[in-house]
Amino acid sequence: MVKKYILSEQDMPRRWYNIMADMPTPMEPPLHPGTGKACGPEDLAPIFPMSLIEQEVSTERWIDIPEEVLEKYTIWRPAPLFRATGLEKALDTPARIYFKNEGVSPAGSHKPNTAIAQAYYNRLAGTKKITTETGAGQWGSALSMCCAFFGIECKVFMVKISYNQKPYRRLMMETWGAKCTASPSTETKAGRSILEQDPESPGSLGMAISEAVEAAVTNPDTKYALGSVLNHVMIHQSIIGLEAQKQMEMAGDYPDIIIGSAGGGSNFAGLAVPFARDKINGREIDIIAAEPASCPTLTRGPFLYDFGDTVQMTPLLPMHTLGHSYVPAPIHAGGLRYHGMAPIVSQLVLDGIVRPEAVKQMETFEAGLTFARSEGFIPAPECNHAVAMAIKEALKAKEEGKEKVILANWSGHGLVDLAAYESYFQGKLSNYELPQKEIDLALKDLDNLPKPRQTNDRTDNQ
Amino acid sequence: MVKKYILSEQDMPRRWYNIMADMPTPMEPPLHPGTGKACGPEDLAPIFPMSLIEQEVSTERWIDIPEEVLEKYTIWRPAPLFRATGLEKALDTPARIYFKNEGVSPAGSHKPNTAIAQAYYNRLAGTKKITTETGAGQWGSALSMCCAFFGIECKVFMVKISYNQKPYRRLMMETWGAKCTASPSTETKAGRSILEQDPESPGSLGMAISEAVEAAVTNPDTKYALGSVLNHVMIHQSIIGLEAQKQMEMAGDYPDIIIGSAGGGSNFAGLAVPFARDKINGREIDIIAAEPASCPTLTRGPFLYDFGDTVQMTPLLPMHTLGHSYVPAPIHAGGLRYHGMAPIVSQLVLDGIVRPEAVKQMETFEAGLTFARSEGFIPAPECNHAVAMAIKEALKAKEEGKEKVILANWSGHGLVDLAAYESYFQGKLSNYELPQKEIDLALKDLDNLPKPRQTNDRTDNQ
Repeated sequence: MVKKYILSEQDMPRRWYNIMADMPTPMEPPLHPGTGKACGPEDLAPIFPMSLIEQEVSTERWIDIPEEVLEKYTIWRPAPLFRATGLEKALDTPARIYFKNEGVSPAGSHKPNTAIAQAYYNRLAGTKKITTETGAGQWGSALSMCCAFFGIECKVFMVKISYNQKPYRRLMMETWGAKCTASPSTETKAGRSILEQDPESPGSLGMAISEAVEAAVTNPDTKYALGSVLNHVMIHQSIIGLEAQKQMEMAGDYPDIIIGSAGGGSNFAGLAVPFARDKINGREIDIIAAEPASCPTLTRGPFLYDFGDTVQMTPLLPMHTLGHSYVPAPIHAGGLRYHGMAPIVSQLVLDGIVRPEAVKQMETFEAGLTFARSEGFIPAPECNHAVAMAIKEALKAKEEGKEKVILANWSGHGLVDLAAYESYFQGKLSNYELPQKEIDLALKDLDNLPKPRQTNDRTDNQ
Repeated sequence: MVKKYILSEQDMPRRWYNIMADMPTPMEPPLHPGTGKACGPEDLAPIFPMSLIEQEVSTERWIDIPEEVLEKYTIWRPAPLFRATGLEKALDTPARIYFKNEGVSPAGSHKPNTAIAQAYYNRLAGTKKITTETGAGQWGSALSMCCAFFGIECKVFMVKISYNQKPYRRLMMETWGAKCTASPSTETKAGRSILEQDPESPGSLGMAISEAVEAAVTNPDTKYALGSVLNHVMIHQSIIGLEAQKQMEMAGDYPDIIIGSAGGGSNFAGLAVPFARDKINGREIDIIAAEPASCPTLTRGPFLYDFGDTVQMTPLLPMHTLGHSYVPAPIHAGGLRYHGMAPIVSQLVLDGIVRPEAVKQMETFEAGLTFARSEGFIPAPECNHAVAMAIKEALKAKEEGKEKVILANWSGHGLVDLAAYESYFQGKLSNYELPQKEIDLALKDLDNLPKPRQTNDRTDNQ
């Protein structure tokens, strides 16, 4: 039996897929934080190069991948798709479980798929320095590497709690030549104002975004890069799903169930969007976004306009949100600790194309151990959400006696996150679930913001 | 231009290559530590299953890889061979540099190639528990994973200084379900006797081997496994070079220079032996074993009979050695901190098939940074010895204006070794070279041991 399905470099997709061409409901536009009017390209020009802004609003179905990006992709792409035969045996399930292995990149996750593209377009636009934020450090390290490839200076604001928990990711960034600072920091106005209110703040992605955006707009030749949430990021990540479609064809299978871990939404969308297109065109697939019960943006946050950051500098985005002032609990899946969700993913949930489900922390680490001992590779804590959901669906298939085909995104390895496993071994982790009153409190700040045309009653999705 | 040369699973070699069939000079046998006579299979039976002992003494050229081992290999094999185009550009060299990427295994190094085989043969023989030692932790983690696959208990004695420097590797072992103890420990007679003499002992591979062997021979259903040095390990690792030969053919190139980092010899031999066979058959190739200047077994140690461990429990092996009582300096390339060298590699050096060269520590980390910033992947400190040598040869080719083809073994990634990079960034590392008087002192202990037929004058190889 074949274990890995590997494309040749010649078979690597040469175009990204943009699901905005196929959305059942057109996306609502981002709004200017000052005027409340739809953002024009000129509003985004201080932080992004124009080529990325064009992708952000594009409704072209296919977007050519530049040659230099393709060339860098081949360092780790095409990424293998593997059949988790060891896991299937361990679970004794009739399900066939496939994982797309995005852990093979030098940074160990899917993040370089968009980091390469963003660094490339920035270099083309003459950008000398890029600022960004990072949670667990997967995005920051990916961007650091790609800036090194293209000779661009890189500055990363890393959420303080992760900075302290994950020194190895900081070291990766430094090895690739970037500068990394714990956020909130004293280097920006935003950081200083947060520290004034709470000197012990553990930081959050929302805060780090504020700092990185400020550092970009206040410095010449400096742009900002975001590793998730935005439309152009989802476009770049579509290469995951496009490859997976070819590989499933090689395997002679088609997935009944698609699974990805969802934090900001990019690894999930990357795998899901080409299959979501099939679903929009009539194919029956269950597409599951697995999010942490401790930060349940899709399952418990309403669909509203909200800021992407804490200090309200970014445009207002139409998305599922727990409120920009919400500081997620310090669980270990740092990459999933974000108050919002990609507008594309949010809209697909609203339209019933994607089904969100929350996973409890202890279940994710149990799943990670089961996976590591049967398949070898140790998943990152973020990735464990998808692994746990795949296991859950495989066991359901066993109960029902059905030969389900499950395809999940194995978004990254956990070799740099082993301290989280240690906490788990030591019994220091728990099944924290976000209290409703915290959500209600954070959402109060959104009362005076503009509302999207569509809204949802959160109880529908639970 | 193609970046990666990837074999299909169907093209993966189904037989290991045993260079003992082709050695210019027959190997000298291991000797019993008590009698000084050649070891028979029965002498090794308390610590190894008979199938591995048979491989240890086999002169069959080809050995079939069992189906179950092949199946597990497919988790990460065939391993990619890649053209280091980014590095070539950074060096502006006419050389074509290829690396065989053994960092793609779940443990991050080449070690699982033999760990799988050893776990498999042990399970076949009914072994319930395997003990072993580990330096940097690459071998211990690899064996832990493979024991998990085959339902065997695993106990690892980890050199104390690495145990403290590399907590993540211990956590990998625990994630895969193994037990890991810092060595010297109080759990064995050997450990206790070492601690009596030096309670602050940083440990060494030689000491950890003593502990692991003792724990195996004094417990029922328990065997011992060694991750390098022995002939059967070199046989299993030959899959690296066999794949690389097919991949170089795909690339339409043949290497002028073969390079591997050499500690115990297994990743070096794994890549080198199939090419060494070509050299024995008349092909001109420069085959370089890159070892640390701080532990210069091949370049400064004589070829003698010596123990594999500190407490003199193992058979005497004919090899280049710095003396079994030598405790290597605590440099960060923990996996290369071993007093001896694989007898096969030692013999190939004696016969002029392999050329050893020592690399200084600072040069290895500089090379690692150059590599990471041009190729993305961050090499392990051990692997940096091969990277540094490849860079040196590529620059020599540039000076000479020659289109040399260089093939090196990229034996593992450094994501779990980033603390070593941090020490480098902080200026805490230096170019320690082993003083001659330390070597002379350690070699004194060998005066009364039997001598091999062949000897060498160390000055020849410098």
